[in-house]
Amino acid sequence: MGIVVQKFGGTSVANKERIENIANIIKDTYKKGNDIIVVVSAQGDTTDELIDKALEINPNPSKRELDQLLNVGEQISISLVAMALEKIGLPVISLLGWQSGIITNSVYNSARIKKIDITRIENEISKHNIVIIAGFQGINKYDDLTTLGRGGSDTTAVAVAAAINADKCQIFTDVEGVYTADPRKVKNAIKLKEITYDEMLELAILGAQVLNNRSVELAKKFGVKLEVLSSLNPVPGTIVKEDVKMEKMVIRGITKDTNISLISIIGVNNKPGEAFKIFSKLANNNIDVDVIIQSIGRDENKDIVFSVAKDKCKEVLKILKETISDAKIITNDNLAKVSIVGAGMISHPGTASKMFEALYDSNINIQMISTSEINISVLIDLKDADKAVSAIHDSFFGK
Amino acid sequence: MGIVVQKFGGTSVANKERIENIANIIKDTYKKGNDIIVVVSAQGDTTDELIDKALEINPNPSKRELDQLLNVGEQISISLVAMALEKIGLPVISLLGWQSGIITNSVYNSARIKKIDITRIENEISKHNIVIIAGFQGINKYDDLTTLGRGGSDTTAVAVAAAINADKCQIFTDVEGVYTADPRKVKNAIKLKEITYDEMLELAILGAQVLNNRSVELAKKFGVKLEVLSSLNPVPGTIVKEDVKMEKMVIRGITKDTNISLISIIGVNNKPGEAFKIFSKLANNNIDVDVIIQSIGRDENKDIVFSVAKDKCKEVLKILKETISDAKIITNDNLAKVSIVGAGMISHPGTASKMFEALYDSNINIQMISTSEINISVLIDLKDADKAVSAIHDSFFGK
Repeated sequence: MGIVVQKFGGTSVANKERIENIANIIKDTYKKGNDIIVVVSAQGDTTDELIDKALEINPNPSKRELDQLLNVGEQISISLVAMALEKIGLPVISLLGWQSGIITNSVYNSARIKKIDITRIENEISKHNIVIIAGFQGINKYDDLTTLGRGGSDTTAVAVAAAINADKCQIFTDVEGVYTADPRKVKNAIKLKEITYDEMLELAILGAQVLNNRSVELAKKFGVKLEVLSSLNPVPGTIVKEDVKMEKMVIRGITKDTNISLISIIGVNNKPGEAFKIFSKLANNNIDVDVIIQSIGRDENKDIVFSVAKDKCKEVLKILKETISDAKIITNDNLAKVSIVGAGMISHPGTASKMFEALYDSNINIQMISTSEINISVLIDLKDADKAVSAIHDSFFGK
Repeated sequence: MGIVVQKFGGTSVANKERIENIANIIKDTYKKGNDIIVVVSAQGDTTDELIDKALEINPNPSKRELDQLLNVGEQISISLVAMALEKIGLPVISLLGWQSGIITNSVYNSARIKKIDITRIENEISKHNIVIIAGFQGINKYDDLTTLGRGGSDTTAVAVAAAINADKCQIFTDVEGVYTADPRKVKNAIKLKEITYDEMLELAILGAQVLNNRSVELAKKFGVKLEVLSSLNPVPGTIVKEDVKMEKMVIRGITKDTNISLISIIGVNNKPGEAFKIFSKLANNNIDVDVIIQSIGRDENKDIVFSVAKDKCKEVLKILKETISDAKIITNDNLAKVSIVGAGMISHPGTASKMFEALYDSNINIQMISTSEINISVLIDLKDADKAVSAIHDSFFGK
């Protein structure tokens, strides 16, 4: 008994049957005497359909109006989920992001939560109403609607759980938990019982689709106990928390990220501040840059190579053209980043060579390498990505 | 030059081409130096589709959650219209009902506007932004979303025009103005240059689809100059105002209303207060009742016959069953109300008999009659409705 936050993604609310299914999950948790806050995403492909609708009218709409439009997706979900709970006789109320007091900054399309005024949520909980909150949404100081960017509903769930001091935050998805690799692609993938925030964070950043990284950061910061589990199959999932019983694994997971564009700037002026100028301008535009390599070029100038999310590529090119008019810019969209993650690898110096050997044995060419304390990433050809994940998984976890 | 409110209905924003069309109308008005407030409805059949979506999940959703869902329709329209104006280089901002300060009571599904806090609208207008407001929407004192009922966008437009003291309020629709009868049905229908609020109000109440009656009431109360015109054909429409030059017409229009259920209660206890009990209960549930006839029945008891909007019939029957368990209730959905409207008819005593004669000549049976100072209505079989309108129109305006 206590306060439980349950987050359901777009596939879990995609149609009448799915909505009735999650209504029963919520009912079961409620009947055990818990107070419940539910956070839902937009149904199925609703967000993409709304974006298409916008681009048909205007290929370059303002981000403010796009957020005004995109807020619609979660609004539909919360009212339908509330109606499904009403139908089975449960006390329920749906709340939009702003009705839930979720206040963000004004970076439209990828806003950050600044604070949550929990007055209304607490008021509804005190009446033992089940509260259905629209994920992904917020409001800024101008009373304009914002969105938190892709995966924003996870962030909403964790932030609300932290603000209301919930006992746990359950993230329901279409897989049964966190696996050593994508179970839809690697048949021997192993479900992890527990995982640390840091490991989960690396997995999320490196492309595991199960949780978005900002939500994991928030959970770590506020000590929110996370559980990743399936909305379709009622079995225990994966617990994400600070300390876990080590399962004697060197690595915890293998991920693949195909949302990558590699951008090469050939011949940047070799004087101090040039690289800073480029990357500070990208940062000011809220563009995350990954895997930066800077090299001395063939003449007096340097080459700079870095990767960004594929959907940001157009914006990045526009910024680069404004910043450095004289350099040649090459892009490559045909890549994937495959990574291994695990706190255990620090004490196992052979980990990197074992990974590279698996790729070599599969005849896969490595284009770039980057490492952190608990991950090793390689950039390879997109067509080799699934083969690479399987080969590395077999090498570490056996066939 | 001044402040112009322009309202566009669902067909005017139904798709990309229609939205681009109204963007050009708005642009023309803006380029003439006007400040502009635009009020839009949901696209095409969006509201009906949302209702279907709700009923699929729960045949009897709470009105609060239904309003939470229905608000989505206008939210989509305003952002798309704003994006279309951005594309042609105009300064624009979309505002939801609550962002526009439209505060209503808490009668979900058919809320009334209590006041409009125009701070935000004035602020945007002072920056010469074109303001796109979501019609039909409001917010109550609990910070919950409400809707104003069918035709609510007209009400929003007139209420905003009154609050901001606009120079005029243009209602764009798919006909060119107010006609003596529906021009899609009666080929000799005449477009009126001017009409009084009272006549327009009767026409609206009696089923002319061109304006909803609450918006006309509001316009009369605050002296808002209305113009009804076409969004597809740029010709002068019909002006609605207090005094008009009489065009020597006895009647101003003929209307048809097919959204009618006739409810007969056979054998109500013949004691004081019984009718009051029934009608006060219906009023408390915000159900408008029309054409009441009370008669002495065949025995000690009375019969009460009245009409309501067809979509309220189910709710009325539920209320009647709770209030009077012993009486027999009969409903008839197969009716139409045909009415003639005009301030001139008071001084022309032959008007009613001329109307009845036209119906008699067309072999149409009259089931019930009701009259007011400026209208005469008859209930007839649904199948005869169009024939009746044409016959009466020919009789008053010639073939």
